[in-house]
Amino acid sequence: MVKVRFVPENVEVKADLGENLLEAARRANVFVDAPCNGNGSCGKCKVKLKEGKAETKQTHHIKDQEWAEGFVLACETKILEDITVEIPNSHATNMSGMRIEGISESREKEIFERARKQVIDNGMSFGSYVKKDYLEIELPTLDDNISDWDRIKRHLRIHLGFNKVFCRLPMLRKIPNMLRDNDFKVTITHIPRGDNRTTIVNIEAGDTRNRLYGVALDIGTTSVAACLVDLYEGRLLAKASSGNAQMKYGADVINRIIYATKRGGLEKLTHAIIHETINPLLTKMYEEANVGKDEVIAFVAAGNTTMCHLLLGVYPDHLRREPYIPAFIRAPFIKTSELELEANPETFIYIVPSVASYVGGDITAGVLSSGIWASEENVLFIDLGTNGEIVFGNKDYFMTCACSAGPAFEGGEISSGMRAAPGAIERVSIDPFTREPQMKIISEETPKGICGSGLIDLIAEMMVTGIIDRRGKLNRDLKTPRIRFDEYEIGEYVLVFKEEWNLEEDITVTEIDIDNFIKAKGAVYSGAATLIESLGLDMSIIDRVYIAGGIGNSLAIDKAIQIGLFPDIDRDKYVYIGNSSLMGCYLTLMSEDARRKLETIAGQMTYMELSAYPSYMDEFISACFLPHTDIERFPSSSVKINNQ
Amino acid sequence: MVKVRFVPENVEVKADLGENLLEAARRANVFVDAPCNGNGSCGKCKVKLKEGKAETKQTHHIKDQEWAEGFVLACETKILEDITVEIPNSHATNMSGMRIEGISESREKEIFERARKQVIDNGMSFGSYVKKDYLEIELPTLDDNISDWDRIKRHLRIHLGFNKVFCRLPMLRKIPNMLRDNDFKVTITHIPRGDNRTTIVNIEAGDTRNRLYGVALDIGTTSVAACLVDLYEGRLLAKASSGNAQMKYGADVINRIIYATKRGGLEKLTHAIIHETINPLLTKMYEEANVGKDEVIAFVAAGNTTMCHLLLGVYPDHLRREPYIPAFIRAPFIKTSELELEANPETFIYIVPSVASYVGGDITAGVLSSGIWASEENVLFIDLGTNGEIVFGNKDYFMTCACSAGPAFEGGEISSGMRAAPGAIERVSIDPFTREPQMKIISEETPKGICGSGLIDLIAEMMVTGIIDRRGKLNRDLKTPRIRFDEYEIGEYVLVFKEEWNLEEDITVTEIDIDNFIKAKGAVYSGAATLIESLGLDMSIIDRVYIAGGIGNSLAIDKAIQIGLFPDIDRDKYVYIGNSSLMGCYLTLMSEDARRKLETIAGQMTYMELSAYPSYMDEFISACFLPHTDIERFPSSSVKINNQ
Repeated sequence: MVKVRFVPENVEVKADLGENLLEAARRANVFVDAPCNGNGSCGKCKVKLKEGKAETKQTHHIKDQEWAEGFVLACETKILEDITVEIPNSHATNMSGMRIEGISESREKEIFERARKQVIDNGMSFGSYVKKDYLEIELPTLDDNISDWDRIKRHLRIHLGFNKVFCRLPMLRKIPNMLRDNDFKVTITHIPRGDNRTTIVNIEAGDTRNRLYGVALDIGTTSVAACLVDLYEGRLLAKASSGNAQMKYGADVINRIIYATKRGGLEKLTHAIIHETINPLLTKMYEEANVGKDEVIAFVAAGNTTMCHLLLGVYPDHLRREPYIPAFIRAPFIKTSELELEANPETFIYIVPSVASYVGGDITAGVLSSGIWASEENVLFIDLGTNGEIVFGNKDYFMTCACSAGPAFEGGEISSGMRAAPGAIERVSIDPFTREPQMKIISEETPKGICGSGLIDLIAEMMVTGIIDRRGKLNRDLKTPRIRFDEYEIGEYVLVFKEEWNLEEDITVTEIDIDNFIKAKGAVYSGAATLIESLGLDMSIIDRVYIAGGIGNSLAIDKAIQIGLFPDIDRDKYVYIGNSSLMGCYLTLMSEDARRKLETIAGQMTYMELSAYPSYMDEFISACFLPHTDIERFPSSSVKINNQ
Repeated sequence: MVKVRFVPENVEVKADLGENLLEAARRANVFVDAPCNGNGSCGKCKVKLKEGKAETKQTHHIKDQEWAEGFVLACETKILEDITVEIPNSHATNMSGMRIEGISESREKEIFERARKQVIDNGMSFGSYVKKDYLEIELPTLDDNISDWDRIKRHLRIHLGFNKVFCRLPMLRKIPNMLRDNDFKVTITHIPRGDNRTTIVNIEAGDTRNRLYGVALDIGTTSVAACLVDLYEGRLLAKASSGNAQMKYGADVINRIIYATKRGGLEKLTHAIIHETINPLLTKMYEEANVGKDEVIAFVAAGNTTMCHLLLGVYPDHLRREPYIPAFIRAPFIKTSELELEANPETFIYIVPSVASYVGGDITAGVLSSGIWASEENVLFIDLGTNGEIVFGNKDYFMTCACSAGPAFEGGEISSGMRAAPGAIERVSIDPFTREPQMKIISEETPKGICGSGLIDLIAEMMVTGIIDRRGKLNRDLKTPRIRFDEYEIGEYVLVFKEEWNLEEDITVTEIDIDNFIKAKGAVYSGAATLIESLGLDMSIIDRVYIAGGIGNSLAIDKAIQIGLFPDIDRDKYVYIGNSSLMGCYLTLMSEDARRKLETIAGQMTYMELSAYPSYMDEFISACFLPHTDIERFPSSSVKINNQ
């Protein structure tokens, strides 16, 4: 056994001789970013060996100077003796909290109100499926000596009309003293069902009807967002978000699934999402809003199908093996306590139903909140997450498909990429003459990296200023210190020199990053195109495009069209609707009718498996150009290129 | 801190200076019998101080010679220094297993068949509420790629007609690999409800339809009996019983309730019944029958109302405080896993509904198995447990009441008393001339004590041979070494001299024992009399008397009548039906119709609170004679007394 010390956290862990350094870091609960799950392809797990020796190798992710300074890839390093390892700041940044969606509060309110209005306009009643009622129960006497539980049931029958009332053991245990300590004046929380039946899930002293809380939760592959809702007033009390702590086990669903098949892997992933991600968010929100966890009595969560499996601890491997079968699409009734989530132990968690293996409940929830189900117009809905999911339809039908975009839109698998958090470069423009960039940074902080919207801007600007060609390759003839090539002849454009801001490293975009990004945007565009073409239609049929996901409100639609991510139609048709999955969960929490609608939506969506569609591969390859092989499809983009 | 060592177990525990010795023994998990829960009144917690000194006192429970030998009452002893304490054998005897009911196997079979026939004769269907079905599910393909859970539901819909199928999280987690490891050939265990709905509670590899097991459980204040049932064939596989380990916290329900109000008391009582009593019985039966705990999927339990509260960990104190309100009469749905019982974690435990605070589910179950609900005859049902519960009625109505008989019928609060276990004196006759006794001992072993049926015989014989008078006082004029008086002038009759069998102590019955016993029999008789008189009837209306409880098959009805325990009617009307509560649980396990009948019975029984009935106290006082103040009520008894 040898010792590994991680600085600056100063955490020490014992390791076997020859153990992999990334595994040791995971055991020590030290966060090392590893989107590719340790197969050496992403280069993100770069750490600095400060003391001691290890068996490792230089790869194209490590420049000569870095190598000289002791940088290694944790996943490519075997521990041979006691060592000290420094984890660069950038890793921590990727795990820290970020603004939800990077949108302003007023914009956010607007989105919430719009979704809410849609629900009300369509005749749905607002009001949580969980109710509170204050009871002043008749005191027992020798002549009226029925049991406490029968007394409560009698009261509910006479005063509220419930013929059948249920509870579970923890409630029963609470009842005798709760009644007597409060003179038989108590507030019950209950979940009514049809046929005058209800189930009591909490009992509190006195009149607490105005304290009834719920949590909406969007579980993304890369990031997790939550909001705490006052169900009594229908008000948003707090919001919180963070990276999904499962990231250390792989950036995308495939790598997570593979990790889940390893011994203890599934348990670690479930632990990471619940104990390392969701519970800290909950605790933070409860404290902020001064809400006790026992007062939180409703829970709605959405995520892609893999995230739902991992949340519930259900073996996911068959999702990625032909014929790609999920264990479930609709989860059974589950209590938050079964998942060890911080909430009242009797709280049920409703998991929004998925559509198929690669179209999850987050999309069902997104469709609910976007209002496609009530729309006369033809709507294209694009969720730019780690997977790109696309829905096309109107009030009469929906078609959906999924394309594996990868995490590029969220800053993943991009060497200087990061999520839309403070310090992220979210807008970029490049002077066509000097090729010098101008940037807008979230929270106007020191730049730390570049997020999805910044990347779209950057690539569009590099294209129109001739820094890159239509394949995304750097123009080797340009004379600017911002363009340079490493010993492997891989080029990069320097957005920020480290000296400008006193950074550890330059912020750059490499040809590999651009290539990754082009594949991602190609996947999304070709998915949308195939979906619409499969109906015998073309892009001109689209009346409205909703863009959802964590890419941020700074997304410049015209730039995204220029690079061929979105179809080249009227910009006014585009609306960015933020985290539509979280919004859908919020609506579900607030309206039982909305929940029923969700069930209908999940059942009505027709899933199209792109890989089974003959023309998809051609579409994809054609879309892996800037903006597209068939430049006629992007008239506005080609104008700019011609004009440069 | 000082040390206390208990021998012969050789268990050592640290104790505070001045700590009570009984408490220290409980902490050390050393069983010291303490029916009165340590208030010094029963004298059962007699232990021997072998080394070291303690603060204690001699009471009338400790004879001079015992005092000289170091015997003390643990409950009256404070620990002052390191001590060694010897626990006499008699304590362990009281905790050891015993024969169920002390009845023969053939008699038991007869009772089971009779109860079963009654159920069938009344048009109830036999068959467990838990079903097993073997499924050969269609394999998934790219074209038929619905989720595993949807596939199971589809199969159940098409092949078995269930429209709604439910499961909980642990099932969902089992499904993906269980299906694939077994080529989609599995057996499901499920609980169908009305409306073509069912809930899957287990899934197993291959065809296991012939392995389906359930447990019936009778939880008595003094003893606990269980049987393991093959639900596929309706066969009894194993039986087991033992003392209720809660005994160390008090012999009767009142003392247990008081203990439950102490800090941590309720948790200890619940732990004692589940982990120290029921689980060992279950494990023993499973091993005996070669049944895996995961195959045990149905559970029915009955007990008095207090035992039900303590089993579920529900605060029971309001049961004993005016107006005597139970927390519940009908328990909610509970899983065995919520109680940490050894069974499949998805198993529901059905708790037989109680009638009132002092008429529990054991009586409801007893009424079910006795068949009163179908009887044209007027039936008197007497359950001789630690409480005496009485039911009178026929197919049209039932009345019920409870009298606190105390544990005398089970050998409790009797100085040489024990349960009907091997070594118990179960029959006694006394030579009218020599006053020498003859005895029958269970399993023909060395006599260890006297059980309920033996005590009835003994007192009847002492009465007819003039050893005691009608108040139960010893005749001081008789010259026999078997009658003697201690320094407090309390008399006793020696049934067995220790020299005869090389025992630690003589087996005797004291005037205090006789007094306790007379109160117990008086309570039962006067309860029955009051119940019948309240209807404007008298004992002659009785067509049949069912005697239930742990008193044993050796019970001599004529002796019980002689002493005034049972009404003096035709002996042929009496039937001993053994543990009718356990039998009722068995029937409930086997027949869903029987379960519904139970619910009806519990709802139909009219409870009469004896203490609220004006004439009861007079009846009780009159009954505290041998056989009764009003000797005319016992013509057969008075004949014998006159004849002596």
